Amino acid sequence: MTLSLNDLPLRDDLRGLTPYGAPQAPLPIALNVNENTHPIPDAVASDILDDIALAIRDVNRYPDREFTTLRESFAEYLGHGLTPEQIWAGNGSNEVLQHILQAFGGPGRTAFGFAPTYSMYPLIAQGTGARWIPGTRQPDYTITPEEAAEQVRTADPDVIILCTPNNPTGTPLGLDVVEAVYEAARGIVIVDEAYQEFAPHDAPSALTLLEGRPRLAVSRTMSKAFAFAGARVGYLAADPTFIDALRLVRLPYHLSTLTQAAAVAALRNSDVMLGMVEEIVEQRDRITATLEALGYTPHESWSNFVLFGGIADPRATWQQLFDRGVLVRDVGIPGHLRVSAGTEAETTAFLDALASIGSAS
Amino acid sequence: MTLSLNDLPLRDDLRGLTPYGAPQAPLPIALNVNENTHPIPDAVASDILDDIALAIRDVNRYPDREFTTLRESFAEYLGHGLTPEQIWAGNGSNEVLQHILQAFGGPGRTAFGFAPTYSMYPLIAQGTGARWIPGTRQPDYTITPEEAAEQVRTADPDVIILCTPNNPTGTPLGLDVVEAVYEAARGIVIVDEAYQEFAPHDAPSALTLLEGRPRLAVSRTMSKAFAFAGARVGYLAADPTFIDALRLVRLPYHLSTLTQAAAVAALRNSDVMLGMVEEIVEQRDRITATLEALGYTPHESWSNFVLFGGIADPRATWQQLFDRGVLVRDVGIPGHLRVSAGTEAETTAFLDALASIGSAS
Repeated sequence: MTLSLNDLPLRDDLRGLTPYGAPQAPLPIALNVNENTHPIPDAVASDILDDIALAIRDVNRYPDREFTTLRESFAEYLGHGLTPEQIWAGNGSNEVLQHILQAFGGPGRTAFGFAPTYSMYPLIAQGTGARWIPGTRQPDYTITPEEAAEQVRTADPDVIILCTPNNPTGTPLGLDVVEAVYEAARGIVIVDEAYQEFAPHDAPSALTLLEGRPRLAVSRTMSKAFAFAGARVGYLAADPTFIDALRLVRLPYHLSTLTQAAAVAALRNSDVMLGMVEEIVEQRDRITATLEALGYTPHESWSNFVLFGGIADPRATWQQLFDRGVLVRDVGIPGHLRVSAGTEAETTAFLDALASIGSAS
Repeated sequence: MTLSLNDLPLRDDLRGLTPYGAPQAPLPIALNVNENTHPIPDAVASDILDDIALAIRDVNRYPDREFTTLRESFAEYLGHGLTPEQIWAGNGSNEVLQHILQAFGGPGRTAFGFAPTYSMYPLIAQGTGARWIPGTRQPDYTITPEEAAEQVRTADPDVIILCTPNNPTGTPLGLDVVEAVYEAARGIVIVDEAYQEFAPHDAPSALTLLEGRPRLAVSRTMSKAFAFAGARVGYLAADPTFIDALRLVRLPYHLSTLTQAAAVAALRNSDVMLGMVEEIVEQRDRITATLEALGYTPHESWSNFVLFGGIADPRATWQQLFDRGVLVRDVGIPGHLRVSAGTEAETTAFLDALASIGSAS
């Protein structure tokens, strides 16, 4: 007799759900989860290993629960006059968002974002017992300050997540939208800048808005620009009191000694680590230009990926690319697929594979 | 104007709470959080570093979400005919317990344990919205199968956590109690064997009870016997369907590439890693004998620490030990303190410091 999930006393709201699961397939060209496909440079890897070798001497002891050195490193990296007291971190920005939703969301509360947006937001919110309210965007995925504020006033959520540049669309969001949403909201406003390093250099960060806005938090990740997805390091900046709220819900010692050591060493090498960003931006813009030439409709992207429409049957095109050894992402938007900008060779392989399938619908 | 937590829209049930916080003080003799005070052997550290050096080449990619190699390693280590499909892991056993309570606890549900027990259980339960129900023990902290079953029938909880050997008392729990509680319960039964490796070699594990009990889970940690507290690796064994339930609530990619590599390498060296256990058990028994000679009343312990009573003013004794450079734990049990078994030298330092304070009350 095989047991099923219904035979266990599972929480009612989890019944019938399936786990989050971007396919992890061993294809030669994997451009499906917006990773940085450039391995970290050897010199940086060596520096990180030196720090880990030191840290492992104390691995029998619990880690620094306050990850003090890491918070100092993030404050220095982010600049904008931030202090370590304004920094928080977790095992990936998913965990950082979970901490916020545990502290300010939870049962009987609501979380809000402008759909389509990062697919984990509703899952993380629901995991804390909060209800997810999807807002809407213009057909080109932009939002004006006025309509954003209006939707927030109507929904009156406890937590708002603004993703900029937005995943899975790549769309930038003006700081005027953040300001308008903050004014319209009584709840927490998170600006998720996971892909900020791929935006134009003169594009201001929401970090510039933190002063005087205690309900605002700006989250980042080392997974993308820092090529550190495997190390699982997300972080945020906010008012020190906001950070105190997260201390109430985090599991003690949530960041391992090895994670802290690796992240501190990587941040010390941020100049080298971020050297790959320019090349990725170049490939992203090449993808956009070539997709247009092939008759597809790529959306403006300030991130390390491109969402493109004009696909008659996304599932079929996804499979045809898969059969050619190229993994992209069907994010569930009709007529669209999403592709990460890879190395020059990977990008060429994707574009050649797509061209070989035939032109757009 | 300084902001306070009350100025933020914090969840109502978090208001007034303070973060979990065993003091992290830089004292020469730290015996307060049941760490393994023996650094991992150099040969093992070197082996772990070799594996991390390989893993870091792919750190730009997300980790194996299913941590397949690590699950295989745990199944082999635990034995008892377990397969990788029966294994789960997290960043510390706290996270493993959190996953269980997210899946089977949550708002409107209850979690139960026999107090005094591990202080994080109520916090983890409440973090998911579940209500914590404390059961009771005999004055010597033991529980009979009959009274355990009776308490469980009365409380009718959704999740039960049995800690054996129990923290902070060190008390073992017979498998007959586990069987009786399972029979009496309709909910999930977790047996937390964090300290199992310090129990007598012929003491059977609750792993022997898994067959035919789909609501039972046995959790372990690498923090204690494996001297790996800094690496944050907890794990459990249960029915494969139970594991599927945890996949619904875990954040994707929750175990980093570095954590997976370090744990697999440590498990490959489990013979060497566990070589320290015998010495720690020897020091634990020496602590018990010496405390008795000093007039204190140590409780029977199958773990790597000793809870001892007969202290007129635990806070004062704690401070006197602190002033002598020895950090122990006041776990809030009247007349008692808890001390971890350290190396021979650390144990001597603790016993000498205690003797220098004067005899028991």
